[in-house]
Amino acid sequence: MFVLGIDPGVSRCGYGCVAGGPGGARRARSYGVLTTPPSDPLPVRLAALAADLQGLVAEAAAMATEAGEVVEVAVERVFFQVNARTAMSVGQASGLALAAAAAAGCAVVEYTPNEVKEAVAGYGAAGKDQVQRMVQVLLDLPSPPRPPDAADALALALCHLAAAPLRARLGAGR
Amino acid sequence: MFVLGIDPGVSRCGYGCVAGGPGGARRARSYGVLTTPPSDPLPVRLAALAADLQGLVAEAAAMATEAGEVVEVAVERVFFQVNARTAMSVGQASGLALAAAAAAGCAVVEYTPNEVKEAVAGYGAAGKDQVQRMVQVLLDLPSPPRPPDAADALALALCHLAAAPLRARLGAGR
Repeated sequence: MFVLGIDPGVSRCGYGCVAGGPGGARRARSYGVLTTPPSDPLPVRLAALAADLQGLVAEAAAMATEAGEVVEVAVERVFFQVNARTAMSVGQASGLALAAAAAAGCAVVEYTPNEVKEAVAGYGAAGKDQVQRMVQVLLDLPSPPRPPDAADALALALCHLAAAPLRARLGAGR
Repeated sequence: MFVLGIDPGVSRCGYGCVAGGPGGARRARSYGVLTTPPSDPLPVRLAALAADLQGLVAEAAAMATEAGEVVEVAVERVFFQVNARTAMSVGQASGLALAAAAAAGCAVVEYTPNEVKEAVAGYGAAGKDQVQRMVQVLLDLPSPPRPPDAADALALALCHLAAAPLRARLGAGR
């Protein structure tokens, strides 16, 4: 299975595509950050982000198909934060990510930041640095993936790969 | 000018298209509510809503073009509400609405609920019923537009039509 992790945001939207191989090996296929210029009006930025996300999902689906695999999408579940303005734009970006994945016919699962940290670093209160180093180790990368948004997205993908067998056994869909 | 007002929501998304004629006459061209089934997974609902919104914008643009007019889009600016879960899904829906409008090349403006009430009913603390009756009067409708989501969307369109001349004089873009 290929998993595309998406850490939604309008200014910076992290993504990371991980292939889960036989025997539990995981390999990062691509990762990075989508950005939109803060000088553009919000609707224009959202339209650009929507197009980029559709492209990302299509690219991940193409890589998966080439490998004879399916692609599923893991998106960070957004919550209200201290900064209401930021939280709203994160919500808008997450809406675009969920819609892009579902429109492409992909299974989509949301995970809370704590679920991701628990899956990747073993406990929900892990720091950013710890998550980055765990992602580096799990994916056998030469250095911690940067920027942090990309590392978070890779962690989301790893979280989904860890959860997928259990979800499949439970016949879970949420 | 044609204005498509959108009152974002995942379960119920109100819309209303108003044509502003010469001499200040305003006519409702279409209004209603887009809904998505609560039994579907959120990503599927968001993808369906995104497609419906794109269709709405295209339809409004076609009506405007036929009349030799342009279409602009007015979207309710969402804030954090008491119910965090609702506010997040409203934020996701608003992201889809803003992106759909900008992707179609339409000018898009957000208005707060208070701005809309002030423009339509004369003061920001007007009740839902007052807004519905004012919309009925301003658009010369036989009865108050229902459901309330559609009335709110028509009010948004009227608000933008009222604000547009001033915005044009100021060369405003926000």
